[in-house]
Amino acid sequence: MPYERPNIARMTGYAPGEQPQERTQRLVKLNTNENPYPPAKPILQALREVTGEDLRRYPPPDARALRETLAEAHGVQPDNVLPTNGGDELLRLAVTTFVEPSSPIGMAQPSYSLYPVLAQIHASPVARVALNRDWSLPDDFAQRLNDAGASLTFVVNPHAPSGRLTDADRLAEIARRLRGVLVIDEAYADFVDPDQGYDAVPLISRLDNVLILRSMSKGYSLAGLRLGYALGPRSLIQPMRTKTKDSYNTDVVAQRLATAAIAHRDQAARSWEAVREQRMRLTRELELLGLSVAPSQSNFLLVSVPSDAGEGVGEKGRGEEGGGEGGKKGGEAKQVYEALKSKRIFVRYFDQDRLRDKLRITVGAPQDNDALLRALREVLR
Amino acid sequence: MPYERPNIARMTGYAPGEQPQERTQRLVKLNTNENPYPPAKPILQALREVTGEDLRRYPPPDARALRETLAEAHGVQPDNVLPTNGGDELLRLAVTTFVEPSSPIGMAQPSYSLYPVLAQIHASPVARVALNRDWSLPDDFAQRLNDAGASLTFVVNPHAPSGRLTDADRLAEIARRLRGVLVIDEAYADFVDPDQGYDAVPLISRLDNVLILRSMSKGYSLAGLRLGYALGPRSLIQPMRTKTKDSYNTDVVAQRLATAAIAHRDQAARSWEAVREQRMRLTRELELLGLSVAPSQSNFLLVSVPSDAGEGVGEKGRGEEGGGEGGKKGGEAKQVYEALKSKRIFVRYFDQDRLRDKLRITVGAPQDNDALLRALREVLR
Repeated sequence: MPYERPNIARMTGYAPGEQPQERTQRLVKLNTNENPYPPAKPILQALREVTGEDLRRYPPPDARALRETLAEAHGVQPDNVLPTNGGDELLRLAVTTFVEPSSPIGMAQPSYSLYPVLAQIHASPVARVALNRDWSLPDDFAQRLNDAGASLTFVVNPHAPSGRLTDADRLAEIARRLRGVLVIDEAYADFVDPDQGYDAVPLISRLDNVLILRSMSKGYSLAGLRLGYALGPRSLIQPMRTKTKDSYNTDVVAQRLATAAIAHRDQAARSWEAVREQRMRLTRELELLGLSVAPSQSNFLLVSVPSDAGEGVGEKGRGEEGGGEGGKKGGEAKQVYEALKSKRIFVRYFDQDRLRDKLRITVGAPQDNDALLRALREVLR
Repeated sequence: MPYERPNIARMTGYAPGEQPQERTQRLVKLNTNENPYPPAKPILQALREVTGEDLRRYPPPDARALRETLAEAHGVQPDNVLPTNGGDELLRLAVTTFVEPSSPIGMAQPSYSLYPVLAQIHASPVARVALNRDWSLPDDFAQRLNDAGASLTFVVNPHAPSGRLTDADRLAEIARRLRGVLVIDEAYADFVDPDQGYDAVPLISRLDNVLILRSMSKGYSLAGLRLGYALGPRSLIQPMRTKTKDSYNTDVVAQRLATAAIAHRDQAARSWEAVREQRMRLTRELELLGLSVAPSQSNFLLVSVPSDAGEGVGEKGRGEEGGGEGGKKGGEAKQVYEALKSKRIFVRYFDQDRLRDKLRITVGAPQDNDALLRALREVLR
């Protein structure tokens, strides 16, 4: 007898990037956007200071100390902050709290592939709006989602998987037009160049429907710990904080280490600067290899593999589709992905419209990027 | 403009027990059923061995090593196991995966007060069946929930807040009769006396609708860490594991420490034995104070406060209701709770039918129980 709900039985789950666990073999992991630099020393110090007594007792259910630290760092109040078990928990909580199952969830196409999975779990239809060719949001983005009846819309900024940044004024305009909640998923915002002057946090005090997601996974080298947080108006934070989140959603270790990470944010900021330098360098070198790279404000690059590449690594390039954006074949990108993997270099390939001719490559430390470029030179030869 | 869903706007969230955070002042915390003994040394050793590199990378999304360890400990396969961010996550996942929002969720009344909260979040009605006077499940429990159309039923065993144990044969009979999924919440099962011969795990290979919840919070002194797990047939585990759980629901620290905890289960088992000894002793001493105590196989006691108690600590006892079970007044229990709290001794009071004349008291270490008994003697004098 099947006990699964029909919507769950029908769906396929989210596929996380591969997480090879071996420690002995040398591998270059550029597939899940981890920060290539280690977490700051005060974080490890905080880890060493966790005691048996801390583990024995329940954690503070409202993560008060962490919320105060985060609030101060962002110039908001603790009531505007909700720590979550990774940013993914916040995405789910926003759906649970603000979306009737019959009501559509809005998103740009393509974007983070978890969004439609969350909609399927919730038995909500998805309202997709295709991005422009340069990955920007179309002018009528909000209007079309209103027409579709979306009660919540996800926008990841900088965009994934392209890395394109939308400026805060444009997001404010979209939020003002949307009839539902706008979740601005800033999982990668720490890597935006300060020259861009990007800051969406002030929107939460001007607009009652804006929720900002932050993650410590990438910016603070803490993917293993699962700590994200929401910034938003109290009216949006409060129901998630006091009603829909699991009672003790973040554990004592994550609360302590995240507090230390924010208190020593300057140390993480040095890794952001290093990633930005490597992003520029990697973009330049990939272009020298004849690949086209979308301009990125994130810690990854979306790289198009031309249809005549990869001839040396598998079946002959077919090229009927030309190098056109959105090619449906793009077998070459997949071949390059496989060829890199056989050299123990992991990047991400998405078997999705507009992405089949592309690879998403995390910006690594200099030696990772060296290894990638060396391998690509061989593969593309 | 209100963005909350109507069911969320209407509801009140779960209220966790107080978690006073001060470390300097002596307090006796017998309100949230923590294990009074520290976690085993190999767990702390595993904590010390977590590296910056572990934190930097995403954790294994499927927690393979932990699942294998748990499977071996329970004599099942890894496909029968799902680690979760505390047992609470599993309760939520079961609702998400197996319950249509219009379909009722079954439960005994009273029981863990999170269950109806999860139903409200899901916009599901609650089907409640009152327990017998001795907190046993009524004979027609399954029948009445089938009649109500429940697609999922929660039974906490040993029962909370009474501590009463239902034997596994009776649970099997209920599962066979139920048309929906039966979640057996064994958060406190580690404290059951081995003389009882209780073991519900074999049910998961005989019945396709039984999910067992285990928690490491109490049994392994790891409440601060948030680690629970499900044991169940593959057909129930698989959709939660591959579709509805957050991609990286348990962090690397929790996975490592839980693995160490299970590998050194003998050390935790010594704390279970000590708790059982203190449970017997505390029961005896409370009865000597004139209080009645429900027979408990858990690490807490449900203690009835007679209506003539507490006269010394507040308004005069009224006693119109006599000491009858289910008294609606029970102001005396609340007074005793408050009086204990003013002495920095925390126990749990539930403002609920059948519980207003009672206190739920966690079995503590000998010195905690001494302090409780001393204070109770003063309060009840």
